[in-house]
Amino acid sequence: MTPERHAPAASGDADLVTVLQALSDPVRLEIVRQLAGCDEESGLSCGQIELEVTKSTASHHLKTLRSAGITAEREEGTRKYTWLRREVLEGRFPGLLDAVLCAAVAEAPSSRR
Amino acid sequence: MTPERHAPAASGDADLVTVLQALSDPVRLEIVRQLAGCDEESGLSCGQIELEVTKSTASHHLKTLRSAGITAEREEGTRKYTWLRREVLEGRFPGLLDAVLCAAVAEAPSSRR
Repeated sequence: MTPERHAPAASGDADLVTVLQALSDPVRLEIVRQLAGCDEESGLSCGQIELEVTKSTASHHLKTLRSAGITAEREEGTRKYTWLRREVLEGRFPGLLDAVLCAAVAEAPSSRR
Repeated sequence: MTPERHAPAASGDADLVTVLQALSDPVRLEIVRQLAGCDEESGLSCGQIELEVTKSTASHHLKTLRSAGITAEREEGTRKYTWLRREVLEGRFPGLLDAVLCAAVAEAPSSRR
């Protein structure tokens, strides 16, 4: 199967409030933090993102991030890989993602830094 | 009456999620945008903040910002003046407020810039 890369149709239109709402959740912040630490090209599959929530809850949070245009995903066979849309976000909201990531890392338990 | 300056007891403890939640509302973003344009020492009274919402709704949003430690207020007679806690926020979340303000100004109607 050819890898499919797709971003939500509304991703380019997500406004600041939507992006801030999507970021204002501890689980979603943790997802963003882990995605920031991986290679943007490869991304992370659901199984590679370590979260202390159920799979369905994780899916919900991943969808919220994707709908806000913060992440995008591609399908490879039965797996979905998610990555941060760093360049798009930086273009729309300069400095925002870096500031949030910096603060999220600073607040994370030391074992996760 | 001696002007009273007070910040909420929990202001120093507001975490990133609380701050992002408080910022992720169009009315509260507009309040922050207007406060950013005023002298920090003087602040703005409720009547000086121009919002298209009722007084009680404005009070609710002002309280949310204050509870998150984003703003503080002082009382002068019967009036309350609100200002942005820029230095505190910059110390806790470097670059975050500036990035949010930059994006909020960019998204605001041109007549308000």
